This record gives sequence, C-alpha cells and structure tokens, in this order.
Amino acid sequence: MSRTAAPIHIDPDLVERYVLELASFGAVGDSGVSRTVYSPEWVGATRCYARWCEEAGLRVHHDAVGNVWGRLEGSEGGKSITSGSHIDSQTPGGRYDGALGALAALIALKALKEQFGTPRRPLEAVAFCEEESSRFPNANYWGSRAITGRIKPDDLEKVVAFSGETIAEAMHAVGLDPARIPEARRDDIEHFVELHIEQGPILEQAGLPVAVVDAITGIRHYRAELRGTQNHAGAFPMDIRRDPMAGFAEIASGLINTAHRMGRPAVTTVGRAVVEPNFPGIIPARVEFSIDARHPDPVVRHRLYAVHEAMMREVAERRGLEIDWQVMIDHEPSPSDPELVSMLNRVAREQGVPVLTMASGAGHDSQQMASIAKVAMIFVRSKDGRSHTPDEFSSVEDIVAGIKVLAAGLRDLAY
Amino acid sequence: MSRTAAPIHIDPDLVERYVLELASFGAVGDSGVSRTVYSPEWVGATRCYARWCEEAGLRVHHDAVGNVWGRLEGSEGGKSITSGSHIDSQTPGGRYDGALGALAALIALKALKEQFGTPRRPLEAVAFCEEESSRFPNANYWGSRAITGRIKPDDLEKVVAFSGETIAEAMHAVGLDPARIPEARRDDIEHFVELHIEQGPILEQAGLPVAVVDAITGIRHYRAELRGTQNHAGAFPMDIRRDPMAGFAEIASGLINTAHRMGRPAVTTVGRAVVEPNFPGIIPARVEFSIDARHPDPVVRHRLYAVHEAMMREVAERRGLEIDWQVMIDHEPSPSDPELVSMLNRVAREQGVPVLTMASGAGHDSQQMASIAKVAMIFVRSKDGRSHTPDEFSSVEDIVAGIKVLAAGLRDLAY
Repeated sequence: MSRTAAPIHIDPDLVERYVLELASFGAVGDSGVSRTVYSPEWVGATRCYARWCEEAGLRVHHDAVGNVWGRLEGSEGGKSITSGSHIDSQTPGGRYDGALGALAALIALKALKEQFGTPRRPLEAVAFCEEESSRFPNANYWGSRAITGRIKPDDLEKVVAFSGETIAEAMHAVGLDPARIPEARRDDIEHFVELHIEQGPILEQAGLPVAVVDAITGIRHYRAELRGTQNHAGAFPMDIRRDPMAGFAEIASGLINTAHRMGRPAVTTVGRAVVEPNFPGIIPARVEFSIDARHPDPVVRHRLYAVHEAMMREVAERRGLEIDWQVMIDHEPSPSDPELVSMLNRVAREQGVPVLTMASGAGHDSQQMASIAKVAMIFVRSKDGRSHTPDEFSSVEDIVAGIKVLAAGLRDLAY
Repeated sequence: MSRTAAPIHIDPDLVERYVLELASFGAVGDSGVSRTVYSPEWVGATRCYARWCEEAGLRVHHDAVGNVWGRLEGSEGGKSITSGSHIDSQTPGGRYDGALGALAALIALKALKEQFGTPRRPLEAVAFCEEESSRFPNANYWGSRAITGRIKPDDLEKVVAFSGETIAEAMHAVGLDPARIPEARRDDIEHFVELHIEQGPILEQAGLPVAVVDAITGIRHYRAELRGTQNHAGAFPMDIRRDPMAGFAEIASGLINTAHRMGRPAVTTVGRAVVEPNFPGIIPARVEFSIDARHPDPVVRHRLYAVHEAMMREVAERRGLEIDWQVMIDHEPSPSDPELVSMLNRVAREQGVPVLTMASGAGHDSQQMASIAKVAMIFVRSKDGRSHTPDEFSSVEDIVAGIKVLAAGLRDLAY
C-alpha cells in the first residue's frame, strides 16, 4: 500500500460552486433546501450529481433504489474503497447536511485522479437516495439499507409518506421498479468513509476544523403516553387530580436532568409533546411525548434507559396515571474501524489538518454500511453547531480541510 | 317578607323531561351536547326554553343579545328577583352545565306560581345566551355582560370565532342587530341566584347533594412562551443547550407543586402546551403554554401569582431562555351576598336539604351579575366531579333538592 504523504490540492472554488449549485435543487429562501427522496428536486439533484461524476471521468451507475454511484476503476481490481453521503434533505434543511458528503467523495476522487492517476484499487463516490426520513418517517436509511440488503419486502407498503403514499408508489413515479431493489445490494465494498457536517458545537468550541469519528452513538426513541382524568381546572382540588401534564412535566424534567448529570456524551431530548384536549381551563386527559436518548457506550446506554424507564414508572404510579411506551427506534452504537480511525488521524497530520477524535451524536448511513464494510467518518465544523435548518453553515476553508483528510485517507487505501 | 317554611314540591318527572328534551338540541352521541351560541342548535334550544316559559305562564322576552327571559309579575312591583344560567355548551359538553340552571329557574318559578300564586315582587327566569367561550374564545360571558352593560363597542369586531367569523356576523346570521346590544342592559334586578352543577368532587366526597356558594374564586390565565435554540438532539451536549422543553417541564412542575403545597382551594393548571417544531429528534425552539391559577382569597391569590412569576423568571434566566407572558383573563374573586348565603342555608334546612357552604372554583355568570345585583349560587352534586364532557351527570334526586332550595330562596325574597 502506498504511504505517500504528498500534499493533496482541493480547489476551494470548485467546492463552493458544487455546494451552491446542488443547493439550487429544492432551494428555499436564501440558503434553505427542501429535497425529499423521489421528489422532482431530488431527481434534478441526482442527475446533476451524475453529470459531475461523468465530467470527473467516473463511470456512473444509478442503482435500483436511486443511489447514484461514480466509479474509478483500479489497476489491481478487488473490493472497492467507497465514500459518500445522502442527497436528500430536511424540509427545509440547509445546503450541507448529507449533500456535502456526496460532493466531498466526488471532489476527492476527481482530485486523486487528476493528481495521482489511476489507483490500484477501485474507488467509488456515492450519493445515497435517502437518509433524513423527511418524506417517509420510517424510511430508516432507505438508500444504505438497499445497499446492505436490509430492506424487507413488506417495507414497500409499510413505509408510508406523511402525505399518505407508499414508498413503492413514490419509486414508480420516478421510474424505479421496487421489485428490483435486491439488485442494489453490494458485497464488494471493503471500506466506507463518510464525510458529514458535525451538526453540533464541539469542533467550534475546540477551535478545530475537522474531526475523525470513532463511533456513532447508540440511539433509542420512545413514544410514551400518559393518561389521567380530564377535569375542570377550577373545580377539581390539586390533591385528588390525576393530571397527566403534572406527570409529564416531572418525567421530562427528570429524564433531561439525568442525562445532564451523567455528563457528555449522554443526551436525552424530549422534542415532541401533544396534549389533549389542550385547553387552558381543562386538566388534560392525555399527554403523548417522545424521548430521544443516546450514548455511544453500549453498557452505559442501557443504564441510561433503565433509569429513564424506572423514573417513568415511578412517577406514573405515584400520581395514579396510566403510562405506556413503545420503542420506535433502537440503534446499537456503531464503532468505527479502529485502523481506519488511526489511519485518518495520521493522514490528517500529514496534510497539516488539526483534528479531534469524537463520537457522533447523530445517526448516519455509516452505521448501516458497517454491516458490509469497515467504516469511519470525518466531521467538518458546523457554525454554531446548527443543522436541520437553512442556517446551517460550514466554511469553504473547513470543508476543504475535511476533503483533504478524506482524499488522503482514500489515497492511503487505494493507491 | 314572607317567612313561610312550607315544603315546596318539585316534580322529578318534569325535571327529567326538560333536561333530556333540552339536550336534544345539539345532541352528540348518547349524552353529549354541542351547542354554541348563535348556532342552529342554540336557536332551537332558546325557542324551546321560551315555549316552556310561556306554558308556565311567564311573559317571554328575547333581549338584544339573545338572552331569553320569562317573567312573573309581582303584585307590589319593584326590582326583580332573578335566577338562571347559560344555555350554550362546550363542544361537546354534557346536559347539565349551564342548561340545568336555566331550567331550574323556570321550574322553580312554575312551581312557585302553581303552589303559592302571584308573588309580591317580580320573579324572572333567564337563559343566558353564552358563557362557555366554546365558539368565541374571548366572548367572556357575552350574555351576562350585555345585561350588565359591559360589552364594549369594539368587542363586536374583536370577539372572533375559532372559525374566523366575528360575533357581530354571527348575531346578524340569527337575526339579531348588534347595534341594539345596549338595550339588553338591566338596572332593575335586585337579586340573582344561579343554580349550577358543582363540576368538582367536593359534594360527592362530603356525601351531600347541594351546596350554597359563598364566593366565586379569583381566576388568572397566563399565556406564556419560552424560546431557546433549536438544535439536533444527538449532536448537541446537554450542558450547552438552551432547551425550552427543559425549562417548560421545570416550570410546569414547579407551578403545579406550589398550588398543591398551598392546599385547598388553591389550584394551578397547565392545560395547554404547544411545542415547535415538535419532532422527536430536535431540541425545540419554542414552547407556548397556558397557566390557569385560582384562589378565592384576594390576598392569597396575588401571593400565588407572585410565586408563579418569580419561578418562571428564575428558571428562564438560569437556563438562558427567553420568556414572556401575557395575562389573558384576570377575574377578581366574587364574594356572594352574605345575607343571601345565610338565607339560602336557612331555607335549605327548612326544606330538609342538607347543604355545604363552599367556594366555586369555576367562573360563572353570577360574577358578572354581581356588578348590578346581590348574588349567590347553589351547586348540585356532580358524579365523579366531571363536567365539560358528555359524561357529566347529576341525579334527578339531587337536582330536585337543589331546585327546592332555589325555589325556597326565591319565595323568601319575592313572596
């Protein structure tokens, strides 16, 4: 394997042009992007990405679920070294979440080909069709699940959009045949390195442009419901109420405080609450709420969940409320390949890019790809830690630094 | 003034028939009623009430806002002795809230006329057009405000329905001329006694059918808003979040616990919460919520509000959140006339009806009427303390007991 430490040049103007042009597909306002999978904007973006791959001398392939691949053949063949991220967005999100990783892979391959010629091993850039669940709330990594063979036949009817159509219907509408999804499966990818914006403030606080990700956190989403007795807010004494809002407030405080006291990187978020009937003068009958609780350590993660569940039970019982919950999402932590992590740290140093090693608090396609390949991720600093908003921003300088690390890593593996 | 303690007979079959028949206007399911002011169901109910008044030998008058009056002239004239309640309902509410008081007045006058002949003083039964704010959230006792001259000219455009129309438009639609509202004002009512269901569990707990109400509690509604910074639930460490849900949960817990520890009759309810953007994986940007806090003691009431406001400020400041609030409703406690309260206690004893004296935790038309007349209320036991639901229920026996006390009280004043 080549061990060159030669500097890699990444063109900042190209980076900026690609980011802005891709963001024109589904543009919302000045800097927002709303581009859900299989929408007309998505079709436009995937075509544009394919065209850029062709212009870079990569062989383009649209797979059975609409992932776009650009391939640079290697002189010695073998399993491929792959990079990429998703091309869909939140509604609206910004220009960087996902799109930047798809572009970074393309730009890195283009730079390697131009500066170092044909690799020994095949290199591939990929734009995954879907990761955000912004059109289909239970799509659950549709693009990378197709590649890893994890889409089940009944997903075609069970994955239903907010607006009611099935994902099979949406695929047909853009000329994709759901029956062919199994053809998207790959068993010839050895390494997958994903570049993504951090979406948090840790790099900004550390004053560093780039991080190497050593694990993706474990995530659990609960949907919980507390039920009490709806009553008149004035005529019912406090001491005999069965008030689900009182129980909810105590539980939400308790869960949030538990994760806070546990310290980084534990996080617990109550992002959603729906109250019934939701009138000022009525003690509610019902509060439905979400719990999102994450930790990258498999043991500590379950300790966090055990405390959360015990607290919910105790509060509900003491207050005479009914409670039940379902686990809606449950992803084990996904550690990066340790050799990839140390290699990326080394090549970052060689390229003069100061990096941090950290866990990802967000889920990513990499955790799906980990079932078929060795994976690692590269994070680029996010302004104010913002994402999933038109305000998300990463500077061209930081992006160039991130792509340098990515390209150097891919070169290390493929040349 | 006559001091007869002769028993008054109230016909339980008539009570049951009137309750069920009036509930057919706006019936929802088996026992629900949805009858908002100036709706077709409301028109039907007011016509039915007027017909029953006529059948009882009362002179009927529909006033300028649609209150229905049934009057029994007195041989000596003078200011009138009035009883009644509102004929509109929640959406859906039950058969008793409001309607029972309008019917009780009519049934009491009918019984007095039949059993004791012409009174010395004029007696009136009234069905107020609106009290529930179930169509116009800021109607704020539309019926009794018209009678007391408290409707301001700009209310006609400012009082707007959930579905967008103004109350002036709704009045026109049922043939009422909003310009004539001032004609509804009355200055010739000396006493107003309102019978109403308790809407709470206090009589049931005490094992008593009827209460005499010595005060209506003071009520304040706040609309509060906490604003933080929307961020990714995974990528943002707990220690640097500005999470308005965390602040809301702590505040809601704190306010509810404060009223609970203060003891009866203090109550604080957080009945409404709206979260933005309300997704499981996103730290919210904003939580809007309501606070309903009540106490019948004018001094203790303000102590409760001061603690609530201090707590909201402290939590918001400590958590780096922006907070603001508006007072949407602020009603001073409304004490009953002490002589009416003691007279009603006396006549209840004379009629063999065991009663409790208590404060009302709910607001009622009586607190408006208190600005032009001496007022008191009579409560009838509510099953399980329920109201504002199709499940609200009071037994015919308890209702008859309540109407006996009402009729005896009106007889004491008018004969």
